[in-house]
Amino acid sequence: MSIREDVIKMKSAAPFLASSTIDERNNALKKIAGSLKDNAERIFAANKEDVDRAQAEGISPAVMKRLKFTEGKLNDCLSGIEQLISLEDPIGRTTLARELDEGLILNRVTCPIGVIGVIFEARPDALIQISTLCLKSGNCAILKGGKETANTNRVLFDIIHDAVIKSSLPPDSMLLAQSHAEIDELLDCHGYVDLLIPRGSNAFVRYIMDNTKIPVMGHADGICHIYVDKDADTDKAIKIIIDAKTQYTAVCNAVETLLINRSIARDFLPKLKDALTEHGVKLRGTGEVNNIINVEVIDDTGFIEYLDLIVSVRLVEDVNEAVAHINRYGSHHTDSIITENMKTAETFMQMTDSAGVYCNCSTRFADGYRYGFGAEVGVSTGKIHARGPVGLEGLVTYKYKLYGNGHIVDDYATGKKQFHFKDI
Amino acid sequence: MSIREDVIKMKSAAPFLASSTIDERNNALKKIAGSLKDNAERIFAANKEDVDRAQAEGISPAVMKRLKFTEGKLNDCLSGIEQLISLEDPIGRTTLARELDEGLILNRVTCPIGVIGVIFEARPDALIQISTLCLKSGNCAILKGGKETANTNRVLFDIIHDAVIKSSLPPDSMLLAQSHAEIDELLDCHGYVDLLIPRGSNAFVRYIMDNTKIPVMGHADGICHIYVDKDADTDKAIKIIIDAKTQYTAVCNAVETLLINRSIARDFLPKLKDALTEHGVKLRGTGEVNNIINVEVIDDTGFIEYLDLIVSVRLVEDVNEAVAHINRYGSHHTDSIITENMKTAETFMQMTDSAGVYCNCSTRFADGYRYGFGAEVGVSTGKIHARGPVGLEGLVTYKYKLYGNGHIVDDYATGKKQFHFKDI
Repeated sequence: MSIREDVIKMKSAAPFLASSTIDERNNALKKIAGSLKDNAERIFAANKEDVDRAQAEGISPAVMKRLKFTEGKLNDCLSGIEQLISLEDPIGRTTLARELDEGLILNRVTCPIGVIGVIFEARPDALIQISTLCLKSGNCAILKGGKETANTNRVLFDIIHDAVIKSSLPPDSMLLAQSHAEIDELLDCHGYVDLLIPRGSNAFVRYIMDNTKIPVMGHADGICHIYVDKDADTDKAIKIIIDAKTQYTAVCNAVETLLINRSIARDFLPKLKDALTEHGVKLRGTGEVNNIINVEVIDDTGFIEYLDLIVSVRLVEDVNEAVAHINRYGSHHTDSIITENMKTAETFMQMTDSAGVYCNCSTRFADGYRYGFGAEVGVSTGKIHARGPVGLEGLVTYKYKLYGNGHIVDDYATGKKQFHFKDI
Repeated sequence: MSIREDVIKMKSAAPFLASSTIDERNNALKKIAGSLKDNAERIFAANKEDVDRAQAEGISPAVMKRLKFTEGKLNDCLSGIEQLISLEDPIGRTTLARELDEGLILNRVTCPIGVIGVIFEARPDALIQISTLCLKSGNCAILKGGKETANTNRVLFDIIHDAVIKSSLPPDSMLLAQSHAEIDELLDCHGYVDLLIPRGSNAFVRYIMDNTKIPVMGHADGICHIYVDKDADTDKAIKIIIDAKTQYTAVCNAVETLLINRSIARDFLPKLKDALTEHGVKLRGTGEVNNIINVEVIDDTGFIEYLDLIVSVRLVEDVNEAVAHINRYGSHHTDSIITENMKTAETFMQMTDSAGVYCNCSTRFADGYRYGFGAEVGVSTGKIHARGPVGLEGLVTYKYKLYGNGHIVDDYATGKKQFHFKDI
């Protein structure tokens, strides 16, 4: 059976999941948590097979760390589900209620998006987070995880899917895609899949975006900037830069480019270089930077995403030039200004065209958990629909419900009746 | 100079327009209204040239009606601008304010989308509505109207653009594309244009959607349904169907398919046929319908958008079968149920996956003006971002502003500090 047929069945199930009550969905989440706890040993055994194979194949320690599903990670997932249960129902909220005329009532009500395909990296906890976020928001989910976690994912999915069925929610509410070939098949399911959320490498996300007519939410690049203003507290700046570059280098919200106000460069750059070198970070920069500290010289094309212990440095005249650089070369993800001048900070935060605009803090805060969203399905650098870390709110849309009693447009077109637009 | 260069300049202007105050934008709108009034004769003269040429070319009366810019239409536009001025600022609204930890404050603030390209039909009032909606929401606008209104559009644009410049808003905030070739150039401006809103024929909108990487908001088809339930007031049903089919046939919210509950078909269909025939509407239907009333027989592929005095008819067993038909063959635009049974109505409105789900009223109400939005830039059948008629709210996105004081992620990762997530 092809995944397309499964997806078509899922599309028919979507209105039924959308009509489920919050109690039914929360009960399913409770059953999932209980069942994950009860089946912990089975999950760990399946994960051991994945880990052993990965070890035999000589996988990198970074990937191995993500791949390994520990007691600690299970507990984090369980408390994540607890938190999700406690959150208000994101669907069925009335966001507009208006009497258009006597007896003609317009309501705008939030509802699930429908069928969402999420393609995610080799992290078993991601499967749990994504499937429970989709369930809470009443969305059917097609889940495709990294091949390195195939065994763990299969077991996790079976446990979660069983709990869904036992909760009398539609069995076709979720589906695990298991082969890589199914991704291309999925990209072709325009009309049945309402949204794709790809997570993973830049090249992979771009491939998805370029090869489907289904709307895609996510981000390819993560070129985050820190601008150190002339009014910066430079100790604060260094502490923040070290965190943003070294706390976790391989992620989209790590800083990649530093923009330094020209007037403080002569004093600040040597201090910056010392601190970065001490943390094993290599510097690249423009000729002007190289005149002050010794760096590998780059030109305008050099301001790229490293995901590594390397950072680009450039001098700018003022906040406007910093903003212009960021809007031109950045990826509209997250950018921070370091300054004690709140007027300059506001200019930066107003003019920078990014999902996250920060003042005096690390770009690494850009994350659904750190924003208090419970969890995230991804981070969006697009400006249409959801932006930044995407939690429950980004998984809903709305519909307009109009209640009449034989109302026809002709009465208004001919002037027999008039709208009175009264919000109620 | 190519439109691409203009668009790149516009992209640089966008953060400045986004930073303008509501007073500046409202003042510009007042100047626009004043200037349109002062230049009425100039506008009508330009429009006469368009009308004369169209007449010489033998254009259809329907297009001619749209094309002709009358005193009445100018007055409607002026009161539209008045209404727009009175509306609250859609940008700069804080939709989330949360203390993540001591001194670490997260705000989610609405902001313009940036650069929006709108391609619209040959209607001079559309240029005024769209440009003023974009201005009020702080968005830069690339405007491309139908070639039949080239003269009128040029004069209207000059008047509006002059008023913008006199209000000290960025001159590059708006731009008129004049040749059809520029549309293809525009489709290639991914990275500079944030959103495209095409209006016009099904084929044209689909062409835009299929030939750009820029997000597109709008709708191609408009296949709207009316389901007449077994508990319907059939007099109400007929009145609503006649309005939805004949009040304006060439629009996306006109009804195209009627689904009739099988149990009332024998009584209802002859009445329906009489009423439709009286209004010049031809019926097509399934074999089962043809067994009761004489119609042109169609199969499953026949449920199309006519935009004409033709309607498809099919019998269904119950509300579930009606919903399944609509979700499968519809265009997710606007669908209505006629019933006196509110439980059945709720099932229909919950399960139908459309931007507008109506009860006992005409599908023709799906329109920004009739919803009290002042005006609309278009109707969206997509579920990502805005859905249904799109007014000011659909023209904004948001950004996350995070204010810290040297806050770094490492303190939270190592457990030295804890988030406390307090909404403020």
